[in-house]
Amino acid sequence: MAIKTKLSIFIFLFFLINIAICREETDPELKTCKHQCHQQRQYDEHDKRICMKECDEYHEMKQEREKHKEDKDDEKEVENPYVFEYKDFDTILDTEDGRISVLNMFDQKSKLLRNVENYGLAVLEAKANAFVSPHHFDSEVIFFNMKGRGIIGLVEQDNTERFNLEAGDIIRVPAGTPIYLVNRDENEKLFIAALHMPSSPGSAPLNFEAFFGPAGRNPESVLTAFSSKVLQAAFKTSKGKLESVLEEQKKERIFKIRKEDVHGMAPKKSIWPFGGQFNGPFNIFSNKPSFSNQFGSLFEIGPSESKSGLEGLNVMLSFANITKGSMSTIYYNTNANKIAFVVDGEGYFEMACPHYMSSKHRKSSSAYHKMNARLRPGMVFVVPAGHPFVTIASKNNNLKIVCFEVNAQRNKKLAFAGKKNIVLALDKTAKELAFGLAAEKVDEMFKRDEEFFFSYNVDESKEDRGHADV
Amino acid sequence: MAIKTKLSIFIFLFFLINIAICREETDPELKTCKHQCHQQRQYDEHDKRICMKECDEYHEMKQEREKHKEDKDDEKEVENPYVFEYKDFDTILDTEDGRISVLNMFDQKSKLLRNVENYGLAVLEAKANAFVSPHHFDSEVIFFNMKGRGIIGLVEQDNTERFNLEAGDIIRVPAGTPIYLVNRDENEKLFIAALHMPSSPGSAPLNFEAFFGPAGRNPESVLTAFSSKVLQAAFKTSKGKLESVLEEQKKERIFKIRKEDVHGMAPKKSIWPFGGQFNGPFNIFSNKPSFSNQFGSLFEIGPSESKSGLEGLNVMLSFANITKGSMSTIYYNTNANKIAFVVDGEGYFEMACPHYMSSKHRKSSSAYHKMNARLRPGMVFVVPAGHPFVTIASKNNNLKIVCFEVNAQRNKKLAFAGKKNIVLALDKTAKELAFGLAAEKVDEMFKRDEEFFFSYNVDESKEDRGHADV
Amino acid sequence: MAIKTKLSIFIFLFFLINIAICREETDPELKTCKHQCHQQRQYDEHDKRICMKECDEYHEMKQEREKHKEDKDDEKEVENPYVFEYKDFDTILDTEDGRISVLNMFDQKSKLLRNVENYGLAVLEAKANAFVSPHHFDSEVIFFNMKGRGIIGLVEQDNTERFNLEAGDIIRVPAGTPIYLVNRDENEKLFIAALHMPSSPGSAPLNFEAFFGPAGRNPESVLTAFSSKVLQAAFKTSKGKLESVLEEQKKERIFKIRKEDVHGMAPKKSIWPFGGQFNGPFNIFSNKPSFSNQFGSLFEIGPSESKSGLEGLNVMLSFANITKGSMSTIYYNTNANKIAFVVDGEGYFEMACPHYMSSKHRKSSSAYHKMNARLRPGMVFVVPAGHPFVTIASKNNNLKIVCFEVNAQRNKKLAFAGKKNIVLALDKTAKELAFGLAAEKVDEMFKRDEEFFFSYNVDESKEDRGHADV
Repeated sequence: MAIKTKLSIFIFLFFLINIAICREETDPELKTCKHQCHQQRQYDEHDKRICMKECDEYHEMKQEREKHKEDKDDEKEVENPYVFEYKDFDTILDTEDGRISVLNMFDQKSKLLRNVENYGLAVLEAKANAFVSPHHFDSEVIFFNMKGRGIIGLVEQDNTERFNLEAGDIIRVPAGTPIYLVNRDENEKLFIAALHMPSSPGSAPLNFEAFFGPAGRNPESVLTAFSSKVLQAAFKTSKGKLESVLEEQKKERIFKIRKEDVHGMAPKKSIWPFGGQFNGPFNIFSNKPSFSNQFGSLFEIGPSESKSGLEGLNVMLSFANITKGSMSTIYYNTNANKIAFVVDGEGYFEMACPHYMSSKHRKSSSAYHKMNARLRPGMVFVVPAGHPFVTIASKNNNLKIVCFEVNAQRNKKLAFAGKKNIVLALDKTAKELAFGLAAEKVDEMFKRDEEFFFSYNVDESKEDRGHADV
Repeated sequence: MAIKTKLSIFIFLFFLINIAICREETDPELKTCKHQCHQQRQYDEHDKRICMKECDEYHEMKQEREKHKEDKDDEKEVENPYVFEYKDFDTILDTEDGRISVLNMFDQKSKLLRNVENYGLAVLEAKANAFVSPHHFDSEVIFFNMKGRGIIGLVEQDNTERFNLEAGDIIRVPAGTPIYLVNRDENEKLFIAALHMPSSPGSAPLNFEAFFGPAGRNPESVLTAFSSKVLQAAFKTSKGKLESVLEEQKKERIFKIRKEDVHGMAPKKSIWPFGGQFNGPFNIFSNKPSFSNQFGSLFEIGPSESKSGLEGLNVMLSFANITKGSMSTIYYNTNANKIAFVVDGEGYFEMACPHYMSSKHRKSSSAYHKMNARLRPGMVFVVPAGHPFVTIASKNNNLKIVCFEVNAQRNKKLAFAGKKNIVLALDKTAKELAFGLAAEKVDEMFKRDEEFFFSYNVDESKEDRGHADV
Repeated sequence: MAIKTKLSIFIFLFFLINIAICREETDPELKTCKHQCHQQRQYDEHDKRICMKECDEYHEMKQEREKHKEDKDDEKEVENPYVFEYKDFDTILDTEDGRISVLNMFDQKSKLLRNVENYGLAVLEAKANAFVSPHHFDSEVIFFNMKGRGIIGLVEQDNTERFNLEAGDIIRVPAGTPIYLVNRDENEKLFIAALHMPSSPGSAPLNFEAFFGPAGRNPESVLTAFSSKVLQAAFKTSKGKLESVLEEQKKERIFKIRKEDVHGMAPKKSIWPFGGQFNGPFNIFSNKPSFSNQFGSLFEIGPSESKSGLEGLNVMLSFANITKGSMSTIYYNTNANKIAFVVDGEGYFEMACPHYMSSKHRKSSSAYHKMNARLRPGMVFVVPAGHPFVTIASKNNNLKIVCFEVNAQRNKKLAFAGKKNIVLALDKTAKELAFGLAAEKVDEMFKRDEEFFFSYNVDESKEDRGHADV
């Protein structure tokens, strides 16, 4: 049953705080929509059900949009091209047993994102024992297993290499490599984030949709695009036989399989690392965290990490776990552009942007724009190189964020606050000139023992209104 | 006689099956056009002849377009942004003795071609003993000698290196290098294809037109763009002398020369490979073919081939000769974007494209678009990375294709059919799950002894209608 | 006093032959503008003064534009997308003690400049003993000290490295590095040119504005973009203390400092070159000139120059000093795209461009466009790879030009005139064919003893009208 997936962008309810919306069937637009479904003579019963489902989904989306609009009015957030929500994802595949959603064409929202415009972020959600059938991409892909226990099969010209995927595992899939995925857990869902990137500086992925493999006609394989006669000649077979093989597969592209089949695909332990063409997965938690204290920890894997599979890619992966009620320091990346995906928890994000083209003859009281957003699971925010920012966890939950940092070579994280910071690093005279104060006074404020993660407790915050209450 | 070349794009009748079109002078548009030529008072007799010739040419083009349109209606081909015909080339130089045509700005047709948008494909046709006068390009160029016997002269700061060019020869011309070309054969034409490419990942050629050298005022050299006083000072000479040297050359940029002059430019054998700054030509047929059987052969030269001149270029050249009545396998390139030029023969091309933005509320029966085209000499087709495709030779002639594959590093050709293919490479359980069939049944269809090239004979093809009859 | 800098683009009067314009207060538009300033009720006296100043500046700009238009009519220059004047710069910072102007988005004028569209050229002018407070950029920057004596401080994670800057010094500032600058001279101004460039081939600077550092609220630091509560938590301090430190600084971003403070920032001599993370400055005049004679000299520093700081950057810096009444040869760069900034003197520039899309049915008498411009200090001209050009100094002053050549790897400068030139390098037969003349006759004109720089004296120039009189 191939529900048209493009139509249901909005049902991307990833990880999912299911928003219970009471469907007001009394909305006249919804009624009209459903009525029209029934009136379509060319539709069979199946088509009508899909049509009506789409009416419901459209209605939900509309309600959510309105709800979102109100939220925004409440928060008085400015238009923020750096932040993406569920509605900005395209659900490119949506079956009973799993779903793939893609956030691509970052440039659509703003040319401020041109440094990440050739990148795409996909998320896969697969139910227990689901099988994602073989496919390939026209881009280089880095998979990050956010949650659950998977198997990935990478197909070479004459065999297939399989690897187990655990939470925190990173694996690089070279451009064009046919792969399949399995959720090998019998109960838990599998959640994978994937960064799609150009396979060389000069090239750009044309699309982030997968080319699905050789089998199946509905959902169909790429082979269905070829003429029957071409296929007959290519496979030296008759039309009848062709159909009997290619059309046998009637399942969706993601479907539940038997336990025995899951076991049948378990990786053979002995082979790796002695043979094999592909790098196996590398676990981000196998390294010591770059920063860790009671307020949070940051794990990083970069291109200089051997055996990580990221060699030569100019990409760094990081995973931040910010303790509830805590925050990261205010810092910026010198070279890297960060694409951050909120895995778990809630929180808040603030970033300083240099202001552009303020309208003439208006004395602006502020030379920098504040960009801010509340963070929820499934949200994406982009932090360009050079832009100072901060992330803060809510009082209720740890905030877990996986970040893909592109253009990571020679990148440094420079902080304004914490044990090591660029204010303390200023020499005495320059510091005094910059602040118009004695260096001791400046140091007094900028010195603190913690590094990178701090408590977000503020003593005298009563007079403070605004956006930062989380 | 400098016929304005831009005006006659359409007379690009390369290699050429001359289409005998009976000129219906009764077309009122043609009559009006010619009438207007006569009415132009500022035109002398020569101008008027050119003007009327252009009317004829426009008329031909119009007829051809209409003919083409009918063809297309017959074939019911969908709009195909991946395929280019003669009319898409710009003839940038057209003399009695030769012609240069360029296909550039691939992006004009579609943003699907953005990975090749900074590339240009030029074709040179030079009559027996023709001389193409010195010029340079603002791009890196790779020449491929498709047919005939040439000489190329590459000018260094204080001397010129000359090389013979034979059919199959590849030679790299570094950006900005002044070159000249000679057809050293007394009878046969010389045909050269040239890929223009950025001289570094960060740069793009601004134009694919040549900067023609120092001599001649009509057709003029680049020096004519400078003020007379500047030229006098640069050459420390008088205006009179300047003109006597620069304007002596009255010939076209391509013109027939004497046999003695051809011999005078014969490369000195002893010098190379001992000295010289430039790589000499490398013949694509000097390597063993990557694949060869009775149905065709494929020759490849890539960046890893030492002395090929392609080192560090991220480009591969390939030459496919598909036997009449045969086909290539269905395959895709993992990284490379292929720009293919049909040298000889006729045939047929099919490619699978992931479908974009299907219109809402319409249950599409097919998730992939079929892109197809009949192939004729002089046509170009582009196959982006990841896109499975097939080429088939007609029953009457071998199909010969030269391909420039850009972003060739780490590229693999992965096939769906033939001795080695990605279906056979799937492990047993995944194969059975993907096809919903016993692995043996799948293997039975996907196994065959031939590799890469197959016969295009289909036994039971009578029931098959459609596009694949060639 | 934060004068809104964007408003005053046109007051970029760099180096500056101050153009004394008699302000015609009688212009009705100027009167109306000033009247409106007075009428703004929300404006205080300070705002009104700024408003009126802006009226004056707008008026000046308008006059200058009109003047410029007349100049252009006189010179009959064609529209020239390769040349930029003061008015094309944005003044992003303008205080009593200094000014920063930026020429970015080269692509705005023409797609012919797409090879430099991700580059920006900034110029800093700082009065005696001025301090430019700490800031960072989201781009890689190369500073060239054109005039004066400076100090630069580069801030690392836990200390600051300082270097003296002398005229001719080049220093690379890695992306994101916080820096400050000092004019250490008590009398002379400091003039620095800066090339802003992508920090990797795949990335583009989003803006060429600086992120100004941690101190000051008016003009404000980037920290002002963060919520007060966030700042309190980050610095573990109270709101009161926060304000007492961050808002103490009331000075502009560029301000005059005391002599003692200048001395306090003098670089420590012993440290470098033994320690330190940053490359110190490299003086372009410390190398032997590439070419030098009585008519001019050319100094070059490229990526192959070790310790220059340009390693791996694909950029070359050059400094040409053309003697008054002299010229450079006619030459082109094979790979590099040149961004040239006129430091001193006046002169003239001519370049040959291949012509595009001449209108149909018009027999053009010239296949190449002449691009030309009179050169004055502060002007910028761009010469794309492959385009032959010439620069000429006026009779009155030496012409000094600093050039940033991007895509410099494998670049060669190929000349049409001078001791070594590509015409002489042509072999005999090709030369005779190209010119339709005996080789001796050609050589006679193209041979001369001088190399690269020549006198611009022409004996019989009386009959020559046109653009080249300088």
